[in-house]
Amino acid sequence: MLNKQKIIAVIGGAQCSKEEARTAEEVGRELARQGAILVCGGLSGVMEAACKGARLEGGVTIGILPGESRQAANTYVQIPIVTSIGYARNIIVVKSSQAVIAIDGNYGTLSEISHALQNGIPVIGLNTWSLSRNSKQDNSIIPAQNATEAVDKALNLAIN
Amino acid sequence: MLNKQKIIAVIGGAQCSKEEARTAEEVGRELARQGAILVCGGLSGVMEAACKGARLEGGVTIGILPGESRQAANTYVQIPIVTSIGYARNIIVVKSSQAVIAIDGNYGTLSEISHALQNGIPVIGLNTWSLSRNSKQDNSIIPAQNATEAVDKALNLAIN
Amino acid sequence: MLNKQKIIAVIGGAQCSKEEARTAEEVGRELARQGAILVCGGLSGVMEAACKGARLEGGVTIGILPGESRQAANTYVQIPIVTSIGYARNIIVVKSSQAVIAIDGNYGTLSEISHALQNGIPVIGLNTWSLSRNSKQDNSIIPAQNATEAVDKALNLAIN
Amino acid sequence: MLNKQKIIAVIGGAQCSKEEARTAEEVGRELARQGAILVCGGLSGVMEAACKGARLEGGVTIGILPGESRQAANTYVQIPIVTSIGYARNIIVVKSSQAVIAIDGNYGTLSEISHALQNGIPVIGLNTWSLSRNSKQDNSIIPAQNATEAVDKALNLAIN
Repeated sequence: MLNKQKIIAVIGGAQCSKEEARTAEEVGRELARQGAILVCGGLSGVMEAACKGARLEGGVTIGILPGESRQAANTYVQIPIVTSIGYARNIIVVKSSQAVIAIDGNYGTLSEISHALQNGIPVIGLNTWSLSRNSKQDNSIIPAQNATEAVDKALNLAIN
Repeated sequence: MLNKQKIIAVIGGAQCSKEEARTAEEVGRELARQGAILVCGGLSGVMEAACKGARLEGGVTIGILPGESRQAANTYVQIPIVTSIGYARNIIVVKSSQAVIAIDGNYGTLSEISHALQNGIPVIGLNTWSLSRNSKQDNSIIPAQNATEAVDKALNLAIN
Repeated sequence: MLNKQKIIAVIGGAQCSKEEARTAEEVGRELARQGAILVCGGLSGVMEAACKGARLEGGVTIGILPGESRQAANTYVQIPIVTSIGYARNIIVVKSSQAVIAIDGNYGTLSEISHALQNGIPVIGLNTWSLSRNSKQDNSIIPAQNATEAVDKALNLAIN
Repeated sequence: MLNKQKIIAVIGGAQCSKEEARTAEEVGRELARQGAILVCGGLSGVMEAACKGARLEGGVTIGILPGESRQAANTYVQIPIVTSIGYARNIIVVKSSQAVIAIDGNYGTLSEISHALQNGIPVIGLNTWSLSRNSKQDNSIIPAQNATEAVDKALNLAIN
């Protein structure tokens, strides 16, 4: 029964270091263990590592793809959503989630963080962006020290 | 295991007659019996009836929502995708599917049929639109007489 | 002064016959003569011919491009809008217009016709699609015999 | 002749202080004086003030609207583009420009900055966001002290 499971986004770079991949995989594993559905951009790097972790624990993985073909999804995506709208799909990744876990990431990840914060969707950060506006620190991104803490916070703060 | 299941779109009006709802529900049931995942626009009418049928047989249902909130999904949607891009989401419904079953429907359904045909995704029609271009009949929509025939054709013709 | 000018969409295939190109160019010319702004998909075929006609009469041309680069616009587009959302941009072409003139066209054009009709935006047809739903003729597309008649009808029926 | 004019985006909050409005208006004026076309999100606040400035100097203004209706555009938008795709339209504002001037702004503005930087489109900042990634300052946003400097930098750095 998928019905009452929370949907949590994992966002981060399509290229990532080994350590980031390890963190992402552990986030995926922990989401699956706690019964959450993972949604992500469906591609490589952090997205693939997180999906791998979730699948290894029997979790459900959704990939919101930017391009024209489901073949572009990483191996661990169970449900590929083929948007064909390019990086405008970033907003769909976050709007489809009830909380977001950001792992490192580049400007694409930052656009997702921005869309989440604009929409009141909690963002948990693992070594990711930090922001200040007009020289004033913005503390909207909630820091976590490790994968388990990130998942716990995401599930606790998840909106309806 | 969701991994090798085909994803079939069911499209049609957000308002529909009792008979259309019966057909849509039977399409949903048959898709679930044959192990396919149902994707739709996530709202009422044909979409809801099809999701209901699929859920009654234990199938998986995905709703690609136009608006800002997962709360808009019908009760039978298990995985709500919140696009927030309005009716531009129609293209995502069809691109995410490997074949489309169209049941009656209005101009929104016609836009989905068009996007599917433009992309080489097979469209099976149950009492839906028929097209002619520059006075020449276009026979791209494959007719079916009933729900079972529609599902059989959709699964046989599904692209990769 | 652009301020009170009507915005009319011209839609049709990215490939077209010489005769269709002639019709499209004449539509573009007539729109410019009557002081309307032309919006289109910005690419080749009918779109290019219509933009050419408009520019030859000093009109304003807008191209709503599907891809990532303004370089893809045809030579006669003055204002390229770079959507990067692929063929989901079709809905923007019609929503940005107050009436639509359809010249022949393929399934992409049909998706634009559908989105226009769904939104109550008048569609004038020059040798384009005709529709029937559930075996009942749908006469929503308003026929025109030539470019001048199409432009007159579009300007008369244009919504606010 | 619109043909060889540069297109520059002005982004910032739909609500803004009087001082920000003054800055935005001056940016709009200076863009028009230097012959550039202004593109923005078409709504109130910074967007409206910038459009007002541009129109007072006879410039051309384009508003890429999120909603369903051209009526939502501010008074100074000459060419309203009706996207109907909600805040996914942010990416179109920046992709349609050759450089971006950011004035203060909230998370929506930050998403536009992110999309611009992801696409190699220069971003000039006037009292706007500053970024650091994984505790390392990111200096991609080019600071300007006033409207004239911002416009000069935007026009000098504008991509093709």
